[in-house]
This record gives sequence, structure tokens and C-alpha cells, in this order.
Amino acid sequence: MNLENDTYLRALAGEPVEHTPVWIMRQAGRYLPEYREIRKQAGDFMTMCQNPELACEVTMQPLRRYPLDAAIIFSDILTIPDAMGLGLHFVQGEGPKFTSPVRTDEQIRKLNVPVIEETLQYVMDAISVTRKTIAGKVPLIGFSGSPWTLATYMVEGGSSKDFSIVKRMLFDAPKTAHTLLDVLARSVTEYLNAQVEAGAQALMIFDTWGGVLNPSMYREFSVRYMQQIVAGLKRTHDGRTIPVTLFTKGAGHRLVELKAAQPDAVGVDWTLDLSTARTLMGPDVGLQGNVDPCLLYASHDVIRDQVRETLGQVSGRHVFNLGHGVKPDMDPERVGTLIDAVHEYSRQSATA
Amino acid sequence: MNLENDTYLRALAGEPVEHTPVWIMRQAGRYLPEYREIRKQAGDFMTMCQNPELACEVTMQPLRRYPLDAAIIFSDILTIPDAMGLGLHFVQGEGPKFTSPVRTDEQIRKLNVPVIEETLQYVMDAISVTRKTIAGKVPLIGFSGSPWTLATYMVEGGSSKDFSIVKRMLFDAPKTAHTLLDVLARSVTEYLNAQVEAGAQALMIFDTWGGVLNPSMYREFSVRYMQQIVAGLKRTHDGRTIPVTLFTKGAGHRLVELKAAQPDAVGVDWTLDLSTARTLMGPDVGLQGNVDPCLLYASHDVIRDQVRETLGQVSGRHVFNLGHGVKPDMDPERVGTLIDAVHEYSRQSATA
Repeated sequence: MNLENDTYLRALAGEPVEHTPVWIMRQAGRYLPEYREIRKQAGDFMTMCQNPELACEVTMQPLRRYPLDAAIIFSDILTIPDAMGLGLHFVQGEGPKFTSPVRTDEQIRKLNVPVIEETLQYVMDAISVTRKTIAGKVPLIGFSGSPWTLATYMVEGGSSKDFSIVKRMLFDAPKTAHTLLDVLARSVTEYLNAQVEAGAQALMIFDTWGGVLNPSMYREFSVRYMQQIVAGLKRTHDGRTIPVTLFTKGAGHRLVELKAAQPDAVGVDWTLDLSTARTLMGPDVGLQGNVDPCLLYASHDVIRDQVRETLGQVSGRHVFNLGHGVKPDMDPERVGTLIDAVHEYSRQSATA
Repeated sequence: MNLENDTYLRALAGEPVEHTPVWIMRQAGRYLPEYREIRKQAGDFMTMCQNPELACEVTMQPLRRYPLDAAIIFSDILTIPDAMGLGLHFVQGEGPKFTSPVRTDEQIRKLNVPVIEETLQYVMDAISVTRKTIAGKVPLIGFSGSPWTLATYMVEGGSSKDFSIVKRMLFDAPKTAHTLLDVLARSVTEYLNAQVEAGAQALMIFDTWGGVLNPSMYREFSVRYMQQIVAGLKRTHDGRTIPVTLFTKGAGHRLVELKAAQPDAVGVDWTLDLSTARTLMGPDVGLQGNVDPCLLYASHDVIRDQVRETLGQVSGRHVFNLGHGVKPDMDPERVGTLIDAVHEYSRQSATA
């Protein structure tokens, strides 16, 4: 099936595009009143993720409002550890928690790659239903957390300010950490490949916490396992390339380490200019990003100015996005202004 | 008066030293039982800061335990906005808060440079008393928060996760932000010069939140005002140079921007290797840092190994420190191991 709008895929492949494609991290989320409505009906977040029809509905919501160039399946980065039996749940105001964190070598050696059909089929079903519902309008992105990022939550038992427990493991018991990261890398590989089989047309790995590591530990405990995953992914399916984007939040110049993993694209946040990112990564890697989400608190004129400035920093292989997810208290109208500005200004320079 | 141990000052001046000097951010703090004892007597944190004898006592505590090469006056980065009348107080588990945050142009135009003798004399008294008590053993460092960092707390009303209110000001009302940052820069300049008059032998500016800004906003709203301050500081006093260290946590390669401010040294955190920092800053700027504080959760052997590895990354103009403050649940014995390892390994290479 041909896509009506394949700008996102063409941009990542380095092909000419009429405008810079744009999607927004957490574009399906609490800032949309229609999302809050579904959430109220569903009760909690995981119920929405686990119900393919609801997951499809909220994935579709931002596509109805905005001329987005890609959809991303509504799900969570922590589905794999949940499938491993750690008991994912969400505590109001505190984020994700695990009932049974893993901290000892014995606990970690007991972890197995989850059997997708038994524990994660709901994600595959959500992707299949959503692929049908999108009906070729734009590509659908599948995703997972990175092994290191999953490990932080699994060891700490939830979000962390200092990552003291998991970092202690890296320092004092690196072999145990590698055991954990390896089973996670194998799990993420199977999980993402299953998403491709189910209909995902592009993949993304969120390494939300790679930026808290020093450069050598980032290489050893984060990049290395994303490299292992990318090497094991189906890079084509149904005759089409499946591009993979790796995003380490707060990587800064450590971004260059991601080259080793040979991704099609890397996510960039606002702490690094896109022009610097292009110099670091060379011409053959796509760049996704990078405005500060707080720009969406600014006036419409300032949003437009900043979009224009950001587009001017890079030409080609660029997918516009925020440097982090849109926040619940942001104004849907301003999100619209941002998306329209990306299209308008990039069309001007494409025809200039 | 000559110092018994001026290794810290000589290292920053680029003079030969017998060992790499070391001090630790928050070396006077809750991880020490003798600190918790005083804190219990005093009741709250600001009472300790505002009582020169108590501030002196807790400043001295780590010097009695460890062979540290510098002391830093026990105080808070937020004393200036408190002196401006914003009402600093601490809420258990939530960090610092201001009773009267400033958000409008009108509120900000009413702010004045505090009259030191009326509002901040307690800091000067603490410095004088401590200088006498140290009796020339090691130099005493005075400090302040950077204008940008003070502004984040003053506008947000306390700690922030996203800095959404103050960033909105930068985007939508940059003139108002500049008005605030200018009065803060003038205040910090007077405050630090008064600390030098009172006896501080070195200065440090903590730009705790500079790392949350994109490169151009970091230059415009953070670096520019530290530059203004450094230009206005007394760089010599009583015939001695007063070195100034600027520390932007999470600066990464944006560290290079700090060259514009012409500091004697810059703080580096663990997300940037000291060898990279040296390349960025050149040979004439001191480097302070940079191990991950979480190293202090590791075993004594790992602590020693990491210290040796860190020392190997840089030669000359280096002051060893953590990349962020020591945490309340850390083990004083391990802090001792770290300090001893810095001295031992750097002496070996000095004589090698």
C-alpha cells in the first residue's frame, strides 16, 4: 500500500521533500481535551495502552486536528519490564512504579525475554488496528525504551532523581548490569521486530536517561545495547525500508557515539544546535528535533520565529520535533501554530 | 598572612603543586553526623546560615575529618533574592521556596540591589569568623548563585522541573528577563566583592540551571551576566589574586562559552570528560571536577580506581571535586577514601 504522505520516510532516507516533516513527542496526550475524555472513560493509563481500540483512538486524535506527517502508536516505554512480571503501575504525581524492582544478580538472572504473544500481544493488536484506521494517510511509528532506560526504572523501582541504586550497580557490579542490559536488548529487538510485523513503518528507541552517564559509561551501558538492537532489527519489511531513530535525551556532544549503532536518524534536544548535530553526525544520518517544549508556552509569533530559526540550522534529512514531549498544560492552538509554521517556512525554502 | 596549604590557589594559578588539590561541593552537609547534630540544635537551615558561629562551625567540620585543600563558607545560593525581600524558606522534601515570586515587569522593576550591611551582613560575619578560625590552614571560598539560576527560583517561586514560567518570560518578555538579570548581576558583584573584603580568598559562582537553556539562550541569559559579574570583581585583595570559578551544571560543550567571561577556572561535571574540557578551554583556564557523586555509593576500591582514571585525564590547573554536591545518604568513610586517593595518586604522578 502506498502512503498518501510519506514525507517522513523520504526525509529520513535523504530523498527530496516538499516540506520538512513534523511529528511531536507525546502528540497523543493530556494536552488534548479529547484525550482527557477517553482517559476519563478508561480510568487509567495502562488500560488505554492495553485496549487496542482505545490506543488506536488516542493515536488518531492528533491526526484529526493537525496536518502531522507521522503517527506514533500510543503505548508506554515500560511495557517490556511489565511483561517480565515487574508489575508496572502509575502513582498520581509520581510517574511509573514497579511493584517488584530487580537489584540482585539472582533476581536479574531469573529474567527472561518475554513471549510476545503471551504478554505484549496488546501492543501488536493496537498497531494492526491503528495501521488499518490510518488507512495509508501517514506512516505509523513503533517504539520502545532503550535497555539502559528500562534498566533504570527496573532497578530503581520507578522514576529517580539521582539514579543512585542503578549507578551503584554499574560501578560495583558491572557484570550484573550487563546481564540485565543484555536480556533487555534481546527483548527490545524481538519486541520491535514484532511491531514491524504488526504494521509499524518506522521505529524509535527512547534512551531517556542515557544523558545521566559519563561518556565512557554511556558507551558501555547505553550505546552498546542500542547498537546490539539495531543490528538485530528487520530493516526492510514488505519491500520498504524501516528507518530507526535513536534518541538520547541530554546527549549533547555524546550524540556522536550513536554513530556506532548505525541508526537512520538520531533525536536531538534543544541543548545542542541542529547545525552542531549535523557536523557531529555527518550528512548521512537523519536529525529529529529540536525545539525546547517550553516554546509552546510562548506567543504565536515567537513560536513562528523560533521554528524559522530552527529550520535554518539544517537542510535535508530533518524531521521537525520538540526536544522532549509536549506537556499536559500546553495549549493545543499553539501546537497547531508550530506544526503549520514548520510546513509553511520549509515549503518557502524548498521552493526558494 | 601566609597559608599553610595554598595548593588550591597555586593549582588555579597554574603553578606547580605537590598534589592535586581537592574539595567537595556540600562538604559541610547532612552526610556528616556532626552536621546533623548542629542542625538539630539550630532547628532550620537558614538559622544555621544566619548565625555566624554556627555557619563557621559547620564550615570547619569537614576540615577536621579530612585533609581538604579548601573550605567553602556555609551558606546558600539564594541569599540575594531573600535579601531583596522575596521570603526564602525551605519546605521539607521540596527544597527552597519564595513567598513572593516575581513574574511581572512591574514586580521586577521594583527590585533593588540589596544594601549588604542591612541584609547580608550575616554572610560577611560568617566569613570573618571562619577566616579567623581556619587560621591560615587552607583558603576559604566565598560564593553566590548566578543571575540566571537566582532568576529561575525567583520567577518559578522555588525549584522547578520544567522551568516553564521563567522560560516563557525569556521567550515572550526578554526585556523583563534582562531587567531582572541585570539587577541580579549588580547585586552578585557587590555581594562577592563584600565577601572578598570580609576574607574570602577565592570565589565561585554556581550556575546550577544554565544547562537547561539552548546554546543561544545560554549565552544571552546566563553567560552574559556571569561575564558582567567577573568584569566587576576585585581580582586582587591584600596583594593576593582572588581566583573565580564559574560552574554551569550540565553545560557539556557549552562550557566553551564561559571563556567569554574570563574566569580563572570552570567547574565540569561528569557528563564531559576533563580531557575534552581541557581541549575546549585551552591551557590557561583551571578545571574543577568532575566525578559523578554516585561514585560515593561504590566500593572503596572502585572509588580509588575512578579517581586514578580521572586524574589521568588532565595535568595541571586541576582542582578535584565531584560534578555535583555530596548527598545526605553518602558514607563519610567513602568521602575520606576519595580525598585520600586524590592526594595519593596525584603525588605519585607529581614525583614520577
